Amino acid sequence: MKKLINDPADVVAEALKGVAAAHPDRLRVDHEQKIVYRRDAPRQGKVGLISGGGSGHEPMHAGYVGLGMLDAACCGEVFTSPVPDQMMAATTAVDGGAGVLHIVKNYTGDVMNFEMAAEMAAADSGVRVESVVTNDDVAVTDSLYTAGRRGVGVTVLLEKIVGAAAEEGRDLDAVLALAQQVNDNGRSMGMALTSCTVPAAGTPTFELADDEMELGIGIHGEPGRSTVKLAPAREIAQQLVEPVLADHDFTGAPAIVMLNGMGGTPLIELYLMYGEVAQILRKSGVEVARCLVGNYITSLEMAGCSVTVLRASDELLKLWDAPVNTTGLRWGV
Amino acid sequence: MKKLINDPADVVAEALKGVAAAHPDRLRVDHEQKIVYRRDAPRQGKVGLISGGGSGHEPMHAGYVGLGMLDAACCGEVFTSPVPDQMMAATTAVDGGAGVLHIVKNYTGDVMNFEMAAEMAAADSGVRVESVVTNDDVAVTDSLYTAGRRGVGVTVLLEKIVGAAAEEGRDLDAVLALAQQVNDNGRSMGMALTSCTVPAAGTPTFELADDEMELGIGIHGEPGRSTVKLAPAREIAQQLVEPVLADHDFTGAPAIVMLNGMGGTPLIELYLMYGEVAQILRKSGVEVARCLVGNYITSLEMAGCSVTVLRASDELLKLWDAPVNTTGLRWGV
Repeated sequence: MKKLINDPADVVAEALKGVAAAHPDRLRVDHEQKIVYRRDAPRQGKVGLISGGGSGHEPMHAGYVGLGMLDAACCGEVFTSPVPDQMMAATTAVDGGAGVLHIVKNYTGDVMNFEMAAEMAAADSGVRVESVVTNDDVAVTDSLYTAGRRGVGVTVLLEKIVGAAAEEGRDLDAVLALAQQVNDNGRSMGMALTSCTVPAAGTPTFELADDEMELGIGIHGEPGRSTVKLAPAREIAQQLVEPVLADHDFTGAPAIVMLNGMGGTPLIELYLMYGEVAQILRKSGVEVARCLVGNYITSLEMAGCSVTVLRASDELLKLWDAPVNTTGLRWGV
Repeated sequence: MKKLINDPADVVAEALKGVAAAHPDRLRVDHEQKIVYRRDAPRQGKVGLISGGGSGHEPMHAGYVGLGMLDAACCGEVFTSPVPDQMMAATTAVDGGAGVLHIVKNYTGDVMNFEMAAEMAAADSGVRVESVVTNDDVAVTDSLYTAGRRGVGVTVLLEKIVGAAAEEGRDLDAVLALAQQVNDNGRSMGMALTSCTVPAAGTPTFELADDEMELGIGIHGEPGRSTVKLAPAREIAQQLVEPVLADHDFTGAPAIVMLNGMGGTPLIELYLMYGEVAQILRKSGVEVARCLVGNYITSLEMAGCSVTVLRASDELLKLWDAPVNTTGLRWGV
């Protein structure tokens, strides 16, 4: 294992020291609980937004904390759910009297721990908590760590859009309904060329031959639909976009599209892939109104990419365009 | 070679199709010449800023085209200088009557081709062209593709700062003087854990054993100071920061620091490294006023990082904070 680390056991804790040192103007870090807060949280009267999950899905979620997105991110160890104590601490800390929304990717550990934290926060401090569980990955139904579909790329788009709605003062019911709308209208599919190495494990999560790729990969390297022969980018684009379009109607509305890198793939390849994906979408009658190309929800240094398509609306585009000030997404401020 | 490409010969051209598809609001792409323009170039009365170089140093330079940074980027093939014709076309296209500054990283091919282009542009169309050649890499004096020190990370900071100065209407002499000031006050040092693979070559540029790293690596994988045993992050930080601090006085002024990833290193490791670097700088009496942590000048999917420190001033910080709207850096707009 070749990594820029000290002790594999300290990776997340030490990375958070770097986050605190780099962004004191925007973020506050609770090093004991491994929670990254928006500097000015709690915001009175604003619905608090919390997410969290295993670390290594970068820049998620700490990179999406700030004005217009999350109020706090609970950082688990790499590829490991945070614990209920973290989530409960974050929940009570960001509550500004308007309640808190938990944004949870559909992995069994995350879902269970966030549920427990919501119950504890409600019982102990009377905070009203609602949850949205994202499950946009069309690749497989059940998976290694998941009952039902996995939550992946749509989580990024959801945090941005719902963050803007919370910022403009919508109440918890409205924010929750919007979150469900976004999840219901987003679909993703990913692939990998290589594995990645979790520091605590020290060896690659899985193996792929030099001429193989994994279609429908999960963000922890969980098996996808199939291990197949490496193909040209234009065929891979087809293999990713087709199942997404087959699963939901994206015509007749503006779409927000994300071509996401898994971490180890250079931007030049991601843009090349985006060119292929955009062409397929155009031919399929999907009107791309906004897009992101880059690393937005990775699997450490895995090489590969995923495609997320969200059926949007004028309202969603307006929320998308609203100011955001996080280390992962920033505009308008 | 496992890459998301079609034909290795078409990688840059096809990536530019993706860039054009993704960012029509901000960028205009000349596909024949492989030049990425700011959509609204030329700006009348504004000094035009051009950079360029081999592709694969991401998101450089196309990712730094836009309001507050470059007017155009000339994209060479991967790790290969663009040609004089590209640079000349870009020079005449962005001239708004106030002249053009070429921002050139110190690699023999780039320097020679930009010089030729400047002469051609002056002779053919009377555009006044000045050049700044960055040479901030303290690792080695001469190198595989370079006479003198290599130009690396400071180029990013220079493009931002000088871009702001051009945007506020400073004339070519002032912009050139500022560019030289930034280059003179910036130093960098990098390291690699792994090689990268140029698509047209198909095999890794160099080899490193499982327990080795290259200190002082160049951004094309050129040999650095030494191949040494892999070390903990805190030692690597020391090995990068010490030569930088030994080469220039960074005390008594605010500093802008960049902890740059070489492409294949996850953000969690880059933040961990930033924590180590920040601690060393603090102990050395360097006051970090602004910082960047992430992939800003990569070597495709190479794992590793570099540190750049710029001795700034209140004026430079003001220019740093000015609005910028590129795909690689964005704030205030």
